[in-house]
Amino acid sequence: MAKLHRLVTAVLRLAAAAAAGAAAIIMVTSHETTYLFGLELEAKYSHTPAFIFFVAAYGVACAYSLLVLPVRPGSAGARLVVMADVIMGMVLTGAVAATGAIAEVGRNGNSHAGWLPICGQVQDYCSHVMGALIAGFVALVVYFLVIMYSLHVIADPMCPCH
Amino acid sequence: MAKLHRLVTAVLRLAAAAAAGAAAIIMVTSHETTYLFGLELEAKYSHTPAFIFFVAAYGVACAYSLLVLPVRPGSAGARLVVMADVIMGMVLTGAVAATGAIAEVGRNGNSHAGWLPICGQVQDYCSHVMGALIAGFVALVVYFLVIMYSLHVIADPMCPCH
Repeated sequence: MAKLHRLVTAVLRLAAAAAAGAAAIIMVTSHETTYLFGLELEAKYSHTPAFIFFVAAYGVACAYSLLVLPVRPGSAGARLVVMADVIMGMVLTGAVAATGAIAEVGRNGNSHAGWLPICGQVQDYCSHVMGALIAGFVALVVYFLVIMYSLHVIADPMCPCH
Repeated sequence: MAKLHRLVTAVLRLAAAAAAGAAAIIMVTSHETTYLFGLELEAKYSHTPAFIFFVAAYGVACAYSLLVLPVRPGSAGARLVVMADVIMGMVLTGAVAATGAIAEVGRNGNSHAGWLPICGQVQDYCSHVMGALIAGFVALVVYFLVIMYSLHVIADPMCPCH
C-alpha cells in the first residue's frame, strides 16, 4: 500500500510540476507589439501586477513540486508537506483568479468603469495569456488532486502508512 | 483533549462566519452615484464579475461555517469537512485575489492598457470595496487557521480523537 501511495503521489507531483512550469513559461513569453494610429503599442506580462504574481507563483510551485518529490508518505516530513501543499494550492488559486479577472477585463472591458477591451488590438498576446491560464488551471486541478489524496491517506485510520 | 479541540474549532468557525458575513454585506452595500461633466455615473458591485463572485463566495462561506459547526472532531464526517474546508479556503482565496486585482486597477489604472483609475471619482465606493477586501482577508486568515488546526489534529498519531 505504501508503495502505491508513493507512486501515485510521485506521478501527480511530476504532472503538477510540468503543468506549473508550462504555465509560467507561456506567461513569461507572452509579448506583442502592435501599431495603432502610428503609435507603437507594446503588450507584455510585466505591465500587469497580477501576471507577475502568476509567473512567480507558478515558478515557485514548479520548483516546490520537484523538491518535495523524495519525501516519503507517512513520514513526519509528509505531514508538514500536506500543510505546505494546502498553502501552495491557495496561492495558485489566487494567481489563477487574479489573472483571470484581469484577462476578463482585457477581453470584455468594463463599460461602467470606462475600460475598453484590448484583445482586439493584441490578439496574439491575449491568446498567449489564455494559454497560460489554461495550463495554470490544469496545474491547479492536479495540485488539488495531490491535496485530496494526501488528506485521504493521512485521515484514514485503517492506513498502515502512519 | 477532544473537548478542547471542539471548543477551538467552534470559536474559529464562528469568527470565520462573522468575518465572511461582514465581507459579503460590505461588498453588497458598496454603491455610489456621482456626476461627471453633467453625466450621472453609478458605481456598484454588480458591475464587476469579480465582485459578484466575491459576494457569492463569502455568502456561501458564512452559511457553510455555521452549518458544519455541530460536526464532532474525530468523527467520519469531520474528515469530509476537512476536505470541504480546503475547497472553501481555495474558493475564498480566489475571490480575494480576483477582487484585489480589479480593485488595484480601479486605484492605479493600467496606462499600458489605457485603463484610467476611477477611485478619484468614486472615493466612497472604493473605500467600501477596500473594507470588504479587508474583512474578506480576515475571514481567509481565520479559515486558514481552521484548516491548519484540523490538519494538525488529524495528522497527529498521538491524538486520541480518531
